[in-house]
Amino acid sequence: MSDWSGPLIAVDWGTSNRRAYLVDACGRVIDQMEDGEGVTSVSGGEFPAAVRQIEERLGAHPMLLAGMIGSNRGWIEAPYVPCPAGVAEVAKRLVPAEGDAKAIVPGLSSIEEGRGDVMRGEEVQIFGLGAEQGGGEGLTICHPGTHTKWATTSAAQVERFRTIMTGEMFALLRKHSILAPMLGADVEPGEAFFAGVDAGFSGVGLTAELFSLRAGVLLSLRPQEEVAPYASGLLIGADAREGLRWSRAEREVVVLGAPTLTRLYAAALRHVGQQAREVDGAEAFIAGMQAIRSSLK
Amino acid sequence: MSDWSGPLIAVDWGTSNRRAYLVDACGRVIDQMEDGEGVTSVSGGEFPAAVRQIEERLGAHPMLLAGMIGSNRGWIEAPYVPCPAGVAEVAKRLVPAEGDAKAIVPGLSSIEEGRGDVMRGEEVQIFGLGAEQGGGEGLTICHPGTHTKWATTSAAQVERFRTIMTGEMFALLRKHSILAPMLGADVEPGEAFFAGVDAGFSGVGLTAELFSLRAGVLLSLRPQEEVAPYASGLLIGADAREGLRWSRAEREVVVLGAPTLTRLYAAALRHVGQQAREVDGAEAFIAGMQAIRSSLK
Repeated sequence: MSDWSGPLIAVDWGTSNRRAYLVDACGRVIDQMEDGEGVTSVSGGEFPAAVRQIEERLGAHPMLLAGMIGSNRGWIEAPYVPCPAGVAEVAKRLVPAEGDAKAIVPGLSSIEEGRGDVMRGEEVQIFGLGAEQGGGEGLTICHPGTHTKWATTSAAQVERFRTIMTGEMFALLRKHSILAPMLGADVEPGEAFFAGVDAGFSGVGLTAELFSLRAGVLLSLRPQEEVAPYASGLLIGADAREGLRWSRAEREVVVLGAPTLTRLYAAALRHVGQQAREVDGAEAFIAGMQAIRSSLK
Repeated sequence: MSDWSGPLIAVDWGTSNRRAYLVDACGRVIDQMEDGEGVTSVSGGEFPAAVRQIEERLGAHPMLLAGMIGSNRGWIEAPYVPCPAGVAEVAKRLVPAEGDAKAIVPGLSSIEEGRGDVMRGEEVQIFGLGAEQGGGEGLTICHPGTHTKWATTSAAQVERFRTIMTGEMFALLRKHSILAPMLGADVEPGEAFFAGVDAGFSGVGLTAELFSLRAGVLLSLRPQEEVAPYASGLLIGADAREGLRWSRAEREVVVLGAPTLTRLYAAALRHVGQQAREVDGAEAFIAGMQAIRSSLK
């Protein structure tokens, strides 16, 4: 195997974006890049060239790649590691690429009562959270995004998790639905947002509630600029209802991910009476990759 | 005004399709046409030409037009008539077009506890149902479609109604979501469909349940061909939950509309213990237009 103890490129390669960090032996970021070359932008077979772009930018170093790059739409498929799983289990199941100079980090799977779930990429951030916080014992984590992940940790492992496709649903509505022309406004955690959170958290039917937003504007019952924050709040409220019920969170929820999203989710959780703490996902990702590479020495 | 007592063209002009029927004085269909020239296919201002196409096909007769043709995306906007409203209220609010040779049938609005709702086109089918059944007294009606309408009638009027965007949600998922490649199969009311109905009727979170369908296939827990019927059942089950709760249906639900859809909805309603009777929407539409024109004599 490669020498994983020196400078390392850690890549978070998702569906629509990729971020790569050059880190030193201690996990400090020396350089980084980000672009829109997600796995769906790379045509079949051209992943080696897409990887070259990263090396041209950040130098030729050992590379760990996580996220959708290891899916059946990515470069090399890395089979899911079943939960419970921590850094050690994932490090053992890395899939080598280009000899041994690079490795794909596999995602996780979780099966509860015959119901399956999968993640790719978020597990690295969760490991990073654990590494920074003495093992990540007994945390309830909410990772908002296209496919929001709720996870619990135990004994420094991801114990189980559940996906709620909140971000994708909002994007579908915003881009393609009859509500699209009314959903352009920015979403801020204000009055309309929290009214939506209340409705979603109460368990109202989403498909029933959504159409009434449009009708409310047509009948001048609701200003159009309230539709986007209300709809966002509605979906996040429904997400919080499901996630809190599923996780049985007793203490705080760690809201992990991109700050623009963790801000909205933390506000929604606090609004329904749940303690919430925000953690930056990019920093957790680097800490997680550092934990994985440390276990390879 | 025109003489509305002779041959008449009744047009059901929706968002993506239009159907036109030439009916005689008694409401018998003499000729008909159907094509994909819905209002979104007609560029601005070209509605007169699109109307000419109908006349070229069915002859120059007085014409009543219902549906999205009377919306702000259509030919001439016909303001909503507030519920409760029946044939008489709608007939009084027809909007003339091209002199008095044609008229647009307005849609209905319903406001309950500050929550607004609108329909355009389905009201004609509901009127037709009432006309055929001695006034449509005390019915609970489910009109499945892109935007499913639940309505109650009283004293030959639409009393109140509620929209659930079930069909649009299924189309969004089928065309644009991460589940799209798994949703191509035909939906039949079989085991997977009814399992979805049970889940949706139980109030499970849609955004949580949907992603697990994909994960279930990736983890070989579920055959891919079950995803489309399960997802359809899930949405229809959630629709039935909301619609039955809202309408407080005590007797049977009249499921009114296109037979391919009423079949699925009636099966779902019976599966959850609700009596349901299917009525063909096209026949009800013609009866409804006949009732409107009769009130113009």
